[in-house]
Amino acid sequence: MPKLRVHNITVSVDGYAAGPRQSLEQPLGEGFGDMHEWMFAAMRDLADGKGGVDAEYVERSKDNIGATIMGRNMFGPWRGPWEDESWTGWWGSNPPFHNDVFVHTHHLRPSVVMEGGTTFHFTDEPVETVLARAVEAAAGQDVQLSGGASTVQQYLRAGLVDEMHIAVVPQLLGRGERLFDDLGDGIDGYRVVDLVGSPTAAHARLVRR
Amino acid sequence: MPKLRVHNITVSVDGYAAGPRQSLEQPLGEGFGDMHEWMFAAMRDLADGKGGVDAEYVERSKDNIGATIMGRNMFGPWRGPWEDESWTGWWGSNPPFHNDVFVHTHHLRPSVVMEGGTTFHFTDEPVETVLARAVEAAAGQDVQLSGGASTVQQYLRAGLVDEMHIAVVPQLLGRGERLFDDLGDGIDGYRVVDLVGSPTAAHARLVRR
Repeated sequence: MPKLRVHNITVSVDGYAAGPRQSLEQPLGEGFGDMHEWMFAAMRDLADGKGGVDAEYVERSKDNIGATIMGRNMFGPWRGPWEDESWTGWWGSNPPFHNDVFVHTHHLRPSVVMEGGTTFHFTDEPVETVLARAVEAAAGQDVQLSGGASTVQQYLRAGLVDEMHIAVVPQLLGRGERLFDDLGDGIDGYRVVDLVGSPTAAHARLVRR
Repeated sequence: MPKLRVHNITVSVDGYAAGPRQSLEQPLGEGFGDMHEWMFAAMRDLADGKGGVDAEYVERSKDNIGATIMGRNMFGPWRGPWEDESWTGWWGSNPPFHNDVFVHTHHLRPSVVMEGGTTFHFTDEPVETVLARAVEAAAGQDVQLSGGASTVQQYLRAGLVDEMHIAVVPQLLGRGERLFDDLGDGIDGYRVVDLVGSPTAAHARLVRR
Protein backbone atom coordinates (compact mmCIF):
# COMPACT_ATOMS: atom_id res chain seq x y z
CA MET A 1 0.00 0.00 0.00
CA PRO A 2 1.30 3.50 -0.80
CA LYS A 3 1.94 5.60 2.30
CA LEU A 4 1.14 9.17 3.24
CA ARG A 5 4.38 10.63 4.59
CA VAL A 6 5.28 13.91 6.29
CA HIS A 7 8.93 14.96 6.26
CA ASN A 8 11.14 17.78 7.48
CA ILE A 9 8.49 19.64 9.46
CA THR A 10 10.64 22.00 11.49
CA VAL A 11 9.44 23.08 14.92
CA SER A 12 10.89 25.26 17.65
CA VAL A 13 11.63 23.85 21.12
CA ASP A 14 8.37 25.44 22.25
CA GLY A 15 6.47 23.57 19.56
CA TYR A 16 5.72 26.10 16.82
CA ALA A 17 5.92 25.14 13.14
CA ALA A 18 5.42 28.73 12.00
CA GLY A 19 5.47 32.17 13.54
CA PRO A 20 2.60 34.66 13.45
CA ARG A 21 1.72 36.91 10.49
CA GLN A 22 2.90 34.80 7.55
CA SER A 23 3.56 37.03 4.53
CA LEU A 24 5.30 37.28 1.18
CA GLU A 25 8.41 38.52 2.97
CA GLN A 26 8.18 36.01 5.82
CA PRO A 27 6.53 32.86 4.44
CA LEU A 28 6.83 31.03 7.74
CA GLY A 29 5.87 34.01 9.86
CA GLU A 30 7.69 36.37 12.15
CA GLY A 31 10.63 34.95 14.05
CA PHE A 32 10.98 31.78 11.95
CA GLY A 33 14.16 33.20 10.46
CA ASP A 34 16.70 30.48 9.68
CA MET A 35 14.89 27.62 11.41
CA HIS A 36 15.07 25.68 8.12
CA GLU A 37 18.81 26.15 7.87
CA TRP A 38 19.48 22.59 9.17
CA MET A 39 17.65 21.34 6.04
CA PHE A 40 19.36 23.64 3.54
CA ALA A 41 22.73 22.69 5.01
CA ALA A 42 21.79 19.01 4.68
CA MET A 43 20.78 19.59 1.03
CA ARG A 44 24.14 21.22 0.37
CA ASP A 45 25.87 18.29 2.05
CA LEU A 46 23.97 15.84 -0.12
CA ALA A 47 24.85 17.83 -3.25
CA ASP A 48 28.49 17.63 -2.16
CA GLY A 49 28.23 13.90 -1.65
CA LYS A 50 28.46 14.23 2.13
CA GLY A 51 26.31 12.38 4.65
CA GLY A 52 25.31 12.86 8.26
CA VAL A 53 22.19 12.52 10.38
CA ASP A 54 20.39 15.55 8.92
CA ALA A 55 21.26 14.52 5.38
CA GLU A 56 19.81 11.05 5.96
CA TYR A 57 16.47 12.53 6.96
CA VAL A 58 16.39 14.88 3.97
CA GLU A 59 17.37 12.08 1.60
CA ARG A 60 14.60 9.89 2.97
CA SER A 61 12.08 12.65 2.20
CA LYS A 62 12.96 12.46 -1.50
CA ASP A 63 12.64 8.71 -1.79
CA ASN A 64 9.70 7.07 -3.62
CA ILE A 65 7.36 10.09 -3.67
CA GLY A 66 4.86 10.16 -6.55
CA ALA A 67 2.47 12.95 -5.53
CA THR A 68 2.25 15.82 -3.04
CA ILE A 69 -0.48 17.35 -0.89
CA MET A 70 -0.22 20.76 0.75
CA GLY A 71 -2.38 23.44 2.30
CA ARG A 72 -3.07 26.69 0.54
CA ASN A 73 -1.07 28.53 3.27
CA MET A 74 1.99 26.64 2.15
CA PHE A 75 1.34 27.40 -1.51
CA GLY A 76 1.22 31.16 -1.01
CA PRO A 77 1.05 33.95 1.55
CA TRP A 78 -2.46 35.21 0.77
CA ARG A 79 -5.66 34.20 2.48
CA GLY A 80 -9.20 34.39 1.10
CA PRO A 81 -10.04 34.69 -2.62
CA TRP A 82 -7.15 34.82 -5.10
CA GLU A 83 -6.52 38.41 -6.01
CA ASP A 84 -4.29 37.33 -8.83
CA GLU A 85 -4.04 33.88 -10.34
CA SER A 86 -0.58 34.58 -11.70
CA TRP A 87 0.82 33.29 -8.37
CA THR A 88 2.18 29.77 -8.96
CA GLY A 89 3.90 29.11 -5.64
CA TRP A 90 7.19 30.09 -4.03
CA TRP A 91 9.31 27.79 -6.12
CA GLY A 92 9.83 29.49 -9.50
CA SER A 93 9.00 28.05 -12.91
CA ASN A 94 10.42 24.59 -12.15
CA PRO A 95 9.23 23.61 -8.66
CA PRO A 96 11.04 20.84 -6.78
CA PHE A 97 8.05 18.47 -6.69
CA HIS A 98 8.10 17.05 -10.25
CA ASN A 99 4.72 15.41 -9.70
CA ASP A 100 1.06 16.27 -9.13
CA VAL A 101 0.58 18.62 -6.19
CA PHE A 102 -2.88 18.88 -4.61
CA VAL A 103 -3.47 22.21 -2.88
CA HIS A 104 -6.29 22.39 -0.34
CA THR A 105 -8.20 25.65 -0.76
CA HIS A 106 -11.75 26.91 -0.58
CA HIS A 107 -10.96 29.11 -3.56
CA LEU A 108 -10.77 26.92 -6.64
CA ARG A 109 -8.87 27.81 -9.80
CA PRO A 110 -7.73 25.85 -12.88
CA SER A 111 -4.79 23.47 -12.56
CA VAL A 112 -1.41 24.95 -13.40
CA VAL A 113 1.16 22.93 -15.36
CA MET A 114 4.72 23.95 -14.46
CA GLU A 115 8.06 22.97 -15.92
CA GLY A 116 9.73 19.76 -14.77
CA GLY A 117 6.60 17.68 -14.29
CA THR A 118 4.91 19.61 -11.47
CA THR A 119 1.17 20.30 -11.87
CA PHE A 120 -0.72 22.18 -9.17
CA HIS A 121 -4.34 21.11 -8.64
CA PHE A 122 -6.65 23.15 -6.41
CA THR A 123 -9.28 21.28 -4.45
CA ASP A 124 -11.86 21.84 -1.73
CA GLU A 125 -12.65 18.15 -1.38
CA PRO A 126 -12.41 16.26 1.95
CA VAL A 127 -9.00 14.93 2.99
CA GLU A 128 -10.00 11.33 2.23
CA THR A 129 -10.92 12.25 -1.36
CA VAL A 130 -7.80 14.32 -1.91
CA LEU A 131 -5.64 11.52 -0.57
CA ALA A 132 -7.35 9.02 -2.89
CA ARG A 133 -6.68 11.30 -5.88
CA ALA A 134 -3.05 11.76 -4.80
CA VAL A 135 -2.57 8.02 -4.35
CA GLU A 136 -3.91 7.45 -7.85
CA ALA A 137 -1.64 10.17 -9.27
CA ALA A 138 1.34 8.63 -7.44
CA ALA A 139 0.86 5.41 -9.41
CA GLY A 140 2.23 3.07 -6.78
CA GLN A 141 4.68 5.45 -5.12
CA ASP A 142 4.01 7.20 -1.80
CA VAL A 143 2.35 10.56 -1.25
CA GLN A 144 4.08 13.38 0.59
CA LEU A 145 2.06 15.71 2.81
CA SER A 146 4.11 18.90 2.82
CA GLY A 147 2.35 21.20 5.31
CA GLY A 148 1.61 23.61 6.74
CA ALA A 149 0.72 22.77 10.30
CA SER A 150 -3.06 23.02 9.98
CA THR A 151 -3.13 20.76 6.92
CA VAL A 152 -0.95 18.19 8.68
CA GLN A 153 -3.33 18.38 11.65
CA GLN A 154 -6.33 17.60 9.43
CA TYR A 155 -4.70 14.43 8.15
CA LEU A 156 -3.43 13.38 11.61
CA ARG A 157 -6.86 13.94 13.10
CA ALA A 158 -8.32 11.68 10.43
CA GLY A 159 -5.61 9.07 11.08
CA LEU A 160 -4.48 9.22 7.45
CA VAL A 161 -0.77 9.94 8.01
CA ASP A 162 1.40 6.81 7.94
CA GLU A 163 4.68 8.38 8.99
CA MET A 164 5.76 11.82 10.16
CA HIS A 165 9.24 13.22 10.65
CA ILE A 166 9.76 16.42 12.59
CA ALA A 167 12.98 18.29 13.28
CA VAL A 168 13.10 20.20 16.55
CA VAL A 169 15.57 23.08 16.29
CA PRO A 170 17.18 25.00 19.17
CA GLN A 171 15.03 28.11 18.89
CA LEU A 172 11.97 29.58 20.57
CA LEU A 173 9.13 31.24 18.68
CA GLY A 174 6.74 32.00 21.53
CA ARG A 175 3.70 32.28 19.28
CA GLY A 176 2.38 31.23 15.90
CA GLU A 177 1.12 27.85 14.71
CA ARG A 178 1.72 24.89 16.97
CA LEU A 179 2.27 21.59 15.20
CA PHE A 180 0.67 19.46 17.92
CA ASP A 181 -2.61 21.26 18.36
CA ASP A 182 -6.24 20.63 17.62
CA LEU A 183 -5.60 16.90 17.09
CA GLY A 184 -8.35 15.52 19.31
CA ASP A 185 -8.03 11.81 19.88
CA GLY A 186 -6.35 11.45 16.47
CA ILE A 187 -2.94 11.67 18.14
CA ASP A 188 -3.67 8.49 20.13
CA GLY A 189 -3.22 6.53 16.92
CA TYR A 190 0.46 7.46 16.78
CA ARG A 191 3.67 6.68 18.61
CA VAL A 192 7.24 7.97 18.44
CA VAL A 193 9.58 5.37 16.98
CA ASP A 194 12.79 7.34 17.21
CA LEU A 195 14.28 10.55 18.52
CA VAL A 196 17.77 11.19 17.21
CA GLY A 197 19.97 14.18 17.89
CA SER A 198 22.28 15.81 15.35
CA PRO A 199 24.45 18.84 16.04
CA THR A 200 21.69 21.07 14.62
CA ALA A 201 18.36 19.39 15.41
CA ALA A 202 16.55 16.61 17.24
CA HIS A 203 14.69 14.42 14.78
CA ALA A 204 11.55 12.58 15.85
CA ARG A 205 9.64 10.09 13.76
CA LEU A 206 6.03 9.17 14.40
CA VAL A 207 4.19 6.21 12.93
CA ARG A 208 0.77 4.70 13.43
CA ARG A 209 0.39 2.41 16.44
CA MET B 1 24.32 36.46 42.12
CA PRO B 2 22.53 33.21 42.99
CA LYS B 3 20.52 31.77 40.11
CA LEU B 4 17.05 30.33 39.80
CA ARG B 5 17.44 27.05 37.91
CA VAL B 6 15.01 24.54 36.45
CA HIS B 7 16.29 21.02 35.76
CA ASN B 8 15.06 17.72 34.40
CA ILE B 9 11.62 18.88 33.31
CA THR B 10 10.51 15.99 31.13
CA VAL B 11 8.19 16.67 28.22
CA SER B 12 6.69 14.52 25.49
CA VAL B 13 7.43 15.19 21.81
CA ASP B 14 4.04 16.93 21.65
CA GLY B 15 5.03 19.25 24.49
CA TYR B 16 3.25 17.97 27.58
CA ALA B 17 4.96 17.98 30.98
CA ALA B 18 2.12 16.05 32.61
CA GLY B 19 -0.91 14.10 31.50
CA PRO B 20 -4.49 14.81 32.54
CA ARG B 21 -6.06 13.80 35.88
CA GLN B 22 -3.07 13.80 38.19
CA SER B 23 -3.73 11.60 41.21
CA LEU B 24 -2.15 9.72 44.08
CA GLU B 25 -1.76 6.71 41.77
CA GLN B 26 -0.57 8.75 38.78
CA PRO B 27 1.27 11.79 40.16
CA LEU B 28 2.11 13.05 36.67
CA GLY B 29 -1.26 12.24 35.19
CA GLU B 30 -2.58 9.63 32.84
CA GLY B 31 -0.22 8.41 30.16
CA PHE B 32 2.96 9.81 31.75
CA GLY B 33 4.02 6.28 32.58
CA ASP B 34 7.78 5.86 32.45
CA MET B 35 8.58 9.23 30.87
CA HIS B 36 10.96 9.90 33.80
CA GLU B 37 12.82 6.64 33.22
CA TRP B 38 15.68 8.45 31.40
CA MET B 39 16.34 10.28 34.70
CA PHE B 40 16.10 7.26 36.98
CA ALA B 41 18.45 5.36 34.67
CA ALA B 42 20.87 8.30 34.80
CA MET B 43 20.68 8.32 38.61
CA ARG B 44 21.50 4.61 38.68
CA ASP B 45 24.39 5.23 36.30
CA LEU B 46 25.72 7.98 38.57
CA ALA B 47 25.39 5.73 41.62
CA ASP B 48 27.40 3.09 39.71
CA GLY B 49 30.07 5.66 38.84
CA LYS B 50 29.05 5.71 35.17
CA GLY B 51 28.68 8.80 33.01
CA GLY B 52 26.89 9.71 29.81
CA VAL B 53 24.87 12.59 28.45
CA ASP B 54 21.79 12.01 30.60
CA ALA B 55 23.94 11.54 33.71
CA GLU B 56 25.68 14.85 33.09
CA TYR B 57 22.37 16.69 33.07
CA VAL B 58 21.18 14.97 36.23
CA GLU B 59 24.49 15.64 37.97
CA ARG B 60 24.29 19.31 37.03
CA SER B 61 20.86 19.50 38.68
CA LYS B 62 22.37 18.52 42.03
CA ASP B 63 25.20 21.03 41.95
CA ASN B 64 25.21 24.10 44.21
CA ILE B 65 21.50 24.09 45.15
CA GLY B 66 20.67 25.69 48.52
CA ALA B 67 16.88 25.97 48.41
CA THR B 68 13.93 24.70 46.39
CA ILE B 69 10.65 26.14 45.12
CA MET B 70 7.74 24.05 43.87
CA GLY B 71 4.04 24.28 43.18
CA ARG B 72 1.49 22.63 45.38
CA ASN B 73 0.57 20.27 42.51
CA MET B 74 4.08 18.88 42.67
CA PHE B 75 3.95 18.50 46.45
CA GLY B 76 0.82 16.38 46.42
CA PRO B 77 -2.06 15.11 44.32
CA TRP B 78 -4.89 17.00 46.02
CA ARG B 79 -6.33 20.32 44.98
CA GLY B 80 -8.19 22.83 47.15
CA PRO B 81 -8.04 22.88 50.98
CA TRP B 82 -5.90 20.25 52.71
CA GLU B 83 -8.14 17.45 53.86
CA ASP B 84 -5.37 16.04 55.94
CA GLU B 85 -2.19 17.79 56.97
CA SER B 86 -0.42 14.48 57.55
CA TRP B 87 0.64 14.55 53.87
CA THR B 88 4.30 15.54 53.73
CA GLY B 89 5.05 14.99 50.05
CA TRP B 90 5.81 12.01 47.85
CA TRP B 91 9.31 11.50 49.09
CA GLY B 92 9.06 9.66 52.44
CA SER B 93 10.50 10.79 55.77
CA ASN B 94 13.85 11.88 54.31
CA PRO B 95 13.12 13.83 51.11
CA PRO B 96 15.92 14.30 48.55
CA PHE B 97 16.03 18.11 48.88
CA HIS B 98 17.98 18.51 52.14
CA ASN B 99 17.21 22.23 52.20
CA ASP B 100 14.30 24.65 52.59
CA VAL B 101 11.49 23.93 50.14
CA PHE B 102 8.95 26.66 49.45
CA VAL B 103 5.59 25.29 48.30
CA HIS B 104 3.23 27.70 46.51
CA THR B 105 -0.32 27.17 47.74
CA HIS B 106 -3.40 29.21 48.52
CA HIS B 107 -3.98 26.89 51.47
CA LEU B 108 -1.45 27.72 54.16
CA ARG B 109 -0.32 25.33 56.86
CA PRO B 110 2.57 25.26 59.34
CA SER B 111 6.07 24.46 58.09
CA VAL B 112 7.07 20.80 58.30
CA VAL B 113 10.58 19.78 59.36
CA MET B 114 11.62 16.49 57.79
CA GLU B 115 14.66 14.29 58.30
CA GLY B 116 17.86 15.08 56.45
CA GLY B 117 17.59 18.86 56.44
CA THR B 118 14.43 19.32 54.36
CA THR B 119 11.83 21.78 55.66
CA PHE B 120 8.64 22.43 53.72
CA HIS B 121 7.27 25.98 53.94
CA PHE B 122 3.83 26.81 52.55
CA THR B 123 3.32 30.24 51.04
CA ASP B 124 0.76 32.25 49.08
CA GLU B 125 3.14 35.15 48.49
CA PRO B 126 3.98 36.48 44.99
CA VAL B 127 6.75 34.75 43.04
CA GLU B 128 9.18 37.63 43.59
CA THR B 129 8.75 37.38 47.37
CA VAL B 130 9.05 33.61 47.45
CA LEU B 131 12.18 33.78 45.31
CA ALA B 132 13.70 36.38 47.67
CA ARG B 133 12.98 34.10 50.65
CA ALA B 134 14.46 31.12 48.83
CA VAL B 135 17.57 33.07 47.84
CA GLU B 136 18.06 34.06 51.47
CA ALA B 137 17.57 30.47 52.64
CA ALA B 138 20.07 29.27 50.02
CA ALA B 139 22.79 31.38 51.66
CA GLY B 140 24.78 32.03 48.51
CA GLN B 141 23.93 28.88 46.64
CA ASP B 142 21.41 28.71 43.78
CA VAL B 143 17.70 28.02 44.03
CA GLN B 144 16.04 25.15 42.17
CA LEU B 145 12.55 25.57 40.77
CA SER B 146 11.23 22.01 40.65
CA GLY B 147 7.84 22.27 38.91
CA GLY B 148 5.19 21.56 37.96
CA ALA B 149 4.50 23.20 34.66
CA SER B 150 2.20 25.96 35.86
CA THR B 151 4.64 27.03 38.57
CA VAL B 152 7.51 27.09 36.07
CA GLN B 153 5.32 29.18 33.78
CA GLN B 154 4.70 31.76 36.51
CA TYR B 155 8.42 32.26 37.01
CA LEU B 156 9.19 32.30 33.26
CA ARG B 157 6.41 34.83 32.67
CA ALA B 158 7.98 37.05 35.32
CA GLY B 159 11.44 36.59 33.78
CA LEU B 160 12.80 35.18 37.03
CA VAL B 161 14.24 31.91 35.73
CA ASP B 162 17.96 32.09 34.92
CA GLU B 163 18.37 28.70 33.34
CA MET B 164 16.03 25.88 32.37
CA HIS B 165 16.82 22.35 31.26
CA ILE B 166 14.15 20.22 29.62
CA ALA B 167 14.38 16.63 28.42
CA VAL B 168 12.18 15.73 25.46
CA VAL B 169 11.42 12.02 25.47
CA PRO B 170 10.16 9.92 22.54
CA GLN B 171 6.56 9.69 23.65
CA LEU B 172 3.24 11.38 22.91
CA LEU B 173 0.76 12.39 25.59
CA GLY B 174 -1.87 14.12 23.46
CA ARG B 175 -3.34 16.07 26.38
CA GLY B 176 -2.48 17.37 29.82
CA GLU B 177 -0.28 20.27 30.90
CA ARG B 178 1.86 21.86 28.23
CA LEU B 179 5.18 23.24 29.43
CA PHE B 180 5.31 26.11 26.93
CA ASP B 181 1.91 27.64 27.47
CA ASP B 182 0.50 30.78 28.95
CA LEU B 183 3.91 32.49 28.88
CA GLY B 184 2.88 35.74 27.19
CA ASP B 185 5.85 37.82 26.16
CA GLY B 186 7.89 36.34 29.01
CA ILE B 187 9.30 33.72 26.64
CA ASP B 188 10.90 36.46 24.51
CA GLY B 189 13.44 36.92 27.29
CA TYR B 190 14.86 33.44 26.68
CA ARG B 191 16.88 31.62 24.07
CA VAL B 192 17.97 28.01 23.57
CA VAL B 193 21.70 27.58 24.15
CA ASP B 194 21.94 23.90 23.41
CA LEU B 195 19.97 20.93 22.18
CA VAL B 196 21.79 17.65 22.71
CA GLY B 197 20.57 14.18 21.89
CA SER B 198 21.19 11.09 23.98
CA PRO B 199 19.91 7.61 23.18
CA THR B 200 16.92 8.25 25.44
CA ALA B 201 16.12 11.99 25.26
CA ALA B 202 16.83 15.31 23.58
CA HIS B 203 18.06 17.82 26.14
CA ALA B 204 17.44 21.54 25.62
CA ARG B 205 18.79 24.29 27.79
CA LEU B 206 17.26 27.77 27.89
CA VAL B 207 18.89 30.85 29.39
CA ARG B 208 17.99 34.52 29.54
CA ARG B 209 18.86 36.54 26.44
